[in-house]
Amino acid sequence: MPLGERGGWERSESRYCGVETDFSDDVTYLLNFNISTGGFDYVLAPLMNPSYRPSLVEGNGVDTQVLPVSGSDLVLSPSQWSSHVVGKISSWIDLDSEDEVLRMDSETTLKQEIAWATHLSLQACLLPTPKGKSCANYARCVNQILQGLTTLQLWLRVPLVKSDGDSMDDTSEGPKDSWKLWNSFRLLCEHDSKLSVALDVLSTLPSETSLGRWMGESVRAAIVSTDSFLTNARGYPCLSKRHQKLIAGFFDHAAQVVISGKSVHNLQKSHDSNTEGTEKHPLRTYLDYVAYLFQKMEPLPEQERIELGYRDFLQAPLQPLMDNLEAQTYETFERDSVKYIQYQRAVEKALVDRVPDEKASELTTVLMVVGAGRGPLVRASLQAAEETGRKLKVYAVEKNPNAVVTLHNLVKMEGWQDIVTIISCDMRFWNATEQADILVSELLGSFGDNELSPECLDGAQRFLKPDGISIPSSYTSFIQPVTASKLYNDVKAHKDLAHFETAYVVKLHSVAKLAPSQDVFTFTHPNFSTKSNNQRYKKLQFNLPSDSGSALVHGFAGYFDSVLYKDVHLGIEPTTATPNMFSWFPIFFPLRKPVELHPDTPLEVHFWRCCGSSKVWYEWSVSSPTPSPMHNTNGRSYWVGL
Amino acid sequence: MPLGERGGWERSESRYCGVETDFSDDVTYLLNFNISTGGFDYVLAPLMNPSYRPSLVEGNGVDTQVLPVSGSDLVLSPSQWSSHVVGKISSWIDLDSEDEVLRMDSETTLKQEIAWATHLSLQACLLPTPKGKSCANYARCVNQILQGLTTLQLWLRVPLVKSDGDSMDDTSEGPKDSWKLWNSFRLLCEHDSKLSVALDVLSTLPSETSLGRWMGESVRAAIVSTDSFLTNARGYPCLSKRHQKLIAGFFDHAAQVVISGKSVHNLQKSHDSNTEGTEKHPLRTYLDYVAYLFQKMEPLPEQERIELGYRDFLQAPLQPLMDNLEAQTYETFERDSVKYIQYQRAVEKALVDRVPDEKASELTTVLMVVGAGRGPLVRASLQAAEETGRKLKVYAVEKNPNAVVTLHNLVKMEGWQDIVTIISCDMRFWNATEQADILVSELLGSFGDNELSPECLDGAQRFLKPDGISIPSSYTSFIQPVTASKLYNDVKAHKDLAHFETAYVVKLHSVAKLAPSQDVFTFTHPNFSTKSNNQRYKKLQFNLPSDSGSALVHGFAGYFDSVLYKDVHLGIEPTTATPNMFSWFPIFFPLRKPVELHPDTPLEVHFWRCCGSSKVWYEWSVSSPTPSPMHNTNGRSYWVGL
Repeated sequence: MPLGERGGWERSESRYCGVETDFSDDVTYLLNFNISTGGFDYVLAPLMNPSYRPSLVEGNGVDTQVLPVSGSDLVLSPSQWSSHVVGKISSWIDLDSEDEVLRMDSETTLKQEIAWATHLSLQACLLPTPKGKSCANYARCVNQILQGLTTLQLWLRVPLVKSDGDSMDDTSEGPKDSWKLWNSFRLLCEHDSKLSVALDVLSTLPSETSLGRWMGESVRAAIVSTDSFLTNARGYPCLSKRHQKLIAGFFDHAAQVVISGKSVHNLQKSHDSNTEGTEKHPLRTYLDYVAYLFQKMEPLPEQERIELGYRDFLQAPLQPLMDNLEAQTYETFERDSVKYIQYQRAVEKALVDRVPDEKASELTTVLMVVGAGRGPLVRASLQAAEETGRKLKVYAVEKNPNAVVTLHNLVKMEGWQDIVTIISCDMRFWNATEQADILVSELLGSFGDNELSPECLDGAQRFLKPDGISIPSSYTSFIQPVTASKLYNDVKAHKDLAHFETAYVVKLHSVAKLAPSQDVFTFTHPNFSTKSNNQRYKKLQFNLPSDSGSALVHGFAGYFDSVLYKDVHLGIEPTTATPNMFSWFPIFFPLRKPVELHPDTPLEVHFWRCCGSSKVWYEWSVSSPTPSPMHNTNGRSYWVGL
Repeated sequence: MPLGERGGWERSESRYCGVETDFSDDVTYLLNFNISTGGFDYVLAPLMNPSYRPSLVEGNGVDTQVLPVSGSDLVLSPSQWSSHVVGKISSWIDLDSEDEVLRMDSETTLKQEIAWATHLSLQACLLPTPKGKSCANYARCVNQILQGLTTLQLWLRVPLVKSDGDSMDDTSEGPKDSWKLWNSFRLLCEHDSKLSVALDVLSTLPSETSLGRWMGESVRAAIVSTDSFLTNARGYPCLSKRHQKLIAGFFDHAAQVVISGKSVHNLQKSHDSNTEGTEKHPLRTYLDYVAYLFQKMEPLPEQERIELGYRDFLQAPLQPLMDNLEAQTYETFERDSVKYIQYQRAVEKALVDRVPDEKASELTTVLMVVGAGRGPLVRASLQAAEETGRKLKVYAVEKNPNAVVTLHNLVKMEGWQDIVTIISCDMRFWNATEQADILVSELLGSFGDNELSPECLDGAQRFLKPDGISIPSSYTSFIQPVTASKLYNDVKAHKDLAHFETAYVVKLHSVAKLAPSQDVFTFTHPNFSTKSNNQRYKKLQFNLPSDSGSALVHGFAGYFDSVLYKDVHLGIEPTTATPNMFSWFPIFFPLRKPVELHPDTPLEVHFWRCCGSSKVWYEWSVSSPTPSPMHNTNGRSYWVGL
C-alpha cells in the first residue's frame, strides 16, 4: 500500500517503501511475508543463488543446465513480478577484479541476471557498488547491457558518504566522496537515462551542501539501513532531524525508500503478543516510521499541485512578438492576480508623482498600455486612477487582432468608451496622435529581456513625453549553475545540436542549485540616449561552497527581477521572488557537455545578447575550469524574431 | 452526449454527431439551441460574418478595425470552444479565381479565420471544397497555414461523388471522381497529417468498391445532407441500406457524423405538441436516427476490444532468433488456444500415418519440438499422443535459458520426466544423439519466413530421419496493395529513409485493400535437396477493379498461410484465415513515395528475399505504373539477424 494511503487518506503523489531481502528459493513465500504480512510495497531481492559461480558449474555449457534462479517465471503473475520485485544483482560480482576467473564469472552472471530480469519484465535492478578504485570494466559491461534494454532501469548502489578532511582520510577505506564514484560511472555510461542511482543512507550524514547536490541527480531510491535509526523514548525506531529532512527531500524528488538490514529494535515481539499471536514482520516498525514521516509532510499548496505536471518539463519559450498568443494563454496569465496588484500599485505611485493632489481634478494623465492583450493592465490602470482620484485617458495598443475583439467587447461591457481608445496596431509602428505621460507594458520573459521588451519599448518610447514614466522602469536577468540530470537527458534525447543550443522555460524541480544567482543584463526605460543599444556581454564567476564536494554543471537556471516603479518590484529570482505569482517559470540554458566543478576552482561563464536586423539571440560559453564550445553562434539554433 | 450513451449504455468507443449551422452573432444561443435543446455534440459553424470582404472594409488597415467574428472569445469557456465548435471557413472563398480581388480577399479571410480558430484553441476547421479545376493557389495558402499549426486540424470538404460513365459525363459540372480532387490537394500539401477530409454524403452513392478506397484515407467527418434521407412508413427520416452500411463503416473508422441542411421531414411539429410545447430542434429526428444506427451496430468481439489499442500501430517485428522473448510475450502467444489445437490435430494425423494402429503399443515415435519456448507445443504433442494412443519420446530444444527454467518446472510439475528431455541449446548447433520421426516448430512470422523459419529448420533437419515429417510442412507469404494514409504518415513522421525501408507488424484497420492478395514465397520442409537455397524472387501484377476509380498505394499488406500437415492449415491470409487466432498481426511494407494507381494500368511489384552470412532481408520495388526506387538495398535499413 502506498505510504500516503496508510493514514486512510490519499496524497497527491504516491510513494512506496520496499525492503531488501536475502535470496530465497521460494519467491511466493518471500512476497507473502514481506508484502502481505510485512506491509511493504515491494522486495529488493537477489535473482540468483549467491553461491552460483558459472566457472564452478560442472560440465559447463552442457545442454541441460538450468539457471539457479528463484523458481520459474510462472510462480508469480507478470504484474506481480513487475510491480513487487526489484532485482538485486549478486553483490559478489567484481568486474574490475585482478582475478580473471572472478571477472569472467561476474560478467557472465551479471548478463544472465539482467536477461532473467528482462524476461520477467521487472521495472528495475540494483547494481552493486563498484568495489575498487576503477570501475571501467564494470561500466563497459553495463554499457553493453544498456544498449539492449527498453524498459528495465538500472540503479547503481552508492553509499552516501563524503569525508570532510583532506589527507587524513585518504588512508581510510572506501571513497572519500561517493558522488565521484557515481559521476565516473555515469560519464562512462554517457549519461544513459536508464541508469540511475540508489543511495545507501548510513548513520552518519555528510554536510548539508554536499547532500544538496544529489537533488539534481536521478536518485531513484534511498536504501536506509536499520543501523541509521535512533531509538525513541518508547523504544521504537526513529531518525535524527537531519535524516528526516533528507528523507523528506527524497520523497519530494520521487525517490523510493527501501529498508535494509536486521531489526535492531526488538520491542515489538512482546508488544505483538497482545494482538493475535500471528507472525509480525521484524522490520514493520521501521516501515511504520517511514510512512509516518511521509504523512507528516506538508501537503502541496494548490498552485504547486496545478503545476505538478510541469515539473522539469522543457517548454520552448513563447514568441509573443512573432506569434499571437492564444485565448487560453491569455486566460492563464490574467488569473495571476498578484502580478496585476503590483502593476496597480506602481501606476498609483506614478500617478501621484505625476499629478499633485491639488491638481487631481484638472489634469488628465495620458497612459498608454502597449501590448494590452485582452485588457488586464487597462483594468489595473483604471483601478489605480480610481484609488488615487486621478483623471486618466487610456490608449490600449495591441497587435493581435484576435485579442482586439475581446478588448472591444470589454470596453463596451464596462462602459469605458469615453476613457479608453483601442489601437489595433504593433506599438513599434503606430503613429500616435499625442504623447503619453505613462507607458505601461508587460513584455517580460522568464529571463527578463528574452521576449524583446527592450526592442518593443525602444519603439514605443517615441510617443512618451521626455519626462514620461515607463512601467516597468528597469529589469535585470540572473543566472546560476545547476545540476539537472533529467533536463540534460531530455535535451540529449533529441540527438541534435539545436536542442543543446536552445533556452527552455521550465518549472525547475529536480535541480541542485550550486551557487547563488548573479545578475546578467539590465535594461532601463525610457532610454533616450542615442549611443546605447541592446547588445550586452557579461562575464561571471561562480564558486561552489567549500564543503559541498564536486558537482556536475548541466547548465544554467535563469530568472529576472523588474523594478516596476520606485520600490514596487516584480520578479522570480529565488531570493527576492514575488510570492504567489505564477506567470513565469525559470529559463534553462543547457550545456552541450556538462562541466565537472570543484570547490577550489571557479566556474567562469560568458553570456552575450546579440541583435540582428530580424532577430535577437543569446550565445553562451564556459571558459573555466575547462572551455566549452560556444553555444548558439549567430543564433543558429535559437533566436527570438523581431 | 456521445451517440453510444443515448441508449443508456456505453460502447467501447464513443462517436459524436455534429450539426452544420449558419453564421450567428450570438454563439451562446447557437450552442444552447443546437446542443442543449437539439442534443447535438457540437456545431460546425462559420467563424466570420459571410458578408465580410476585407476589400470592402472602409479605411482598410485603420487601427480601430475589429474582425467581424461571432462575439468575443469570452462568450464561451475555452473548453466549450474547443469541444463544442468546429470552425467552418467562409464558403465563398475561392483562392483560384481569375478575379484578383476575390483571390486576395479569400486569402486574407482564410488566414484571419484560421488565426481566430487557433486563438480559440478549436480542434478543427472545415475548408470549403475547391471551386475550380485547379486548386494550386488554395493548396499553397493551406500549406503556409499548416506550417504554423500545432493542434488545429483542417478538414477539406469534398463531395462523395464518382460518375461511372466515360465521355458522356465529361460535360457535367463538378468532378467526375472527387477522390482525385482530394488526392491532388493532399499531394500538394505533401501528405500533411494535420490535413484530413470531410465527405459530403449525398443522396446518390458511387459504387461499392469506389467507396472502399476512402477507408484507407483520413476521413474525419461524414457530412450527411438531410436530402439524402428517405422517409419511413411513419414519416420519419431514415437512410437506404447502402447509406446505412457506409455510415457504419465511418463509425468503425472513427469519423464523426455531421447533419447538414434544412429539415425535409416535417412530422415532428404535430408530434411534439403532445409533450411540453417547448421548442424542438428541427433536425432532432435525424440525430436520433444516426444514434439508432450507431447503437444497432454489433458490439466488438472480446479479442477485438483487447486489440483496439493496436489498431494501425506500427511495431518492429520480433527478432526471436537474435533476441530472447520475454515472459509476457510467451504468455500472450500461449493463450492462443486455436493455434495449439491446430498443431495437436496435425501431430495426431502425423502420428497415425507414422504408426499404424496395430503397432501403436510397440513403436515409440521420436518427436522433437525445436524452439520449445515454455512448452505449449510439448503439451499439444503429448495430448496428440494420448488422443491417438501412440507412444512418444519428446525432445524439447530451446535456446533461451530463461524459458528453459520454466520448461524444467513444467516437466517436473506434470511428471513428464520419463518422456520429455529438455535441451538448452540453439537447434542449429545441437548435436542430437538420435534422429527424429517428427520435427515440430512454430517459427513463423507474420510474413511466414520473416522470422527465419527456413534457416532454422534447415539446421534442425540434420537430425530428422530421411522419411521424417516436419510440422509445418510448408508455408507461403502473400501481399496485396493498400491505401493506408495513417500508416504512411506515421512512417513519414520519423523523417528518415530507414523507416520507409522497414517492414512493420501492425493490426491493419484504417486500410483500404485495393486488390486480392497474391502469393509471394513458398518454403517446404524437410528439404534435403542440395541445390536449393532460401533466396527468392517474385514479380507480381495487381489490377484495380474497373469501377473502383483511382487510388493511392501507400504500401503492401503481407500475410502467411501454412500447411501444418496434410489438410491441417494455419494462417492469416484474409480469405483463408484461421478463425479466432490472434498470435499474428499482418505485416506492412511501406513505399517511400505512394503510387497513384488507375484501373486501366496494372501495378507491377517485385519482392526479393536475400540471404547473407549473418542476416536475411527483403528488398522491394514497384516498376509500373511508375518505377519506385529500390527499397532496402543490401538490407541497409531492415534485416533479420541469423
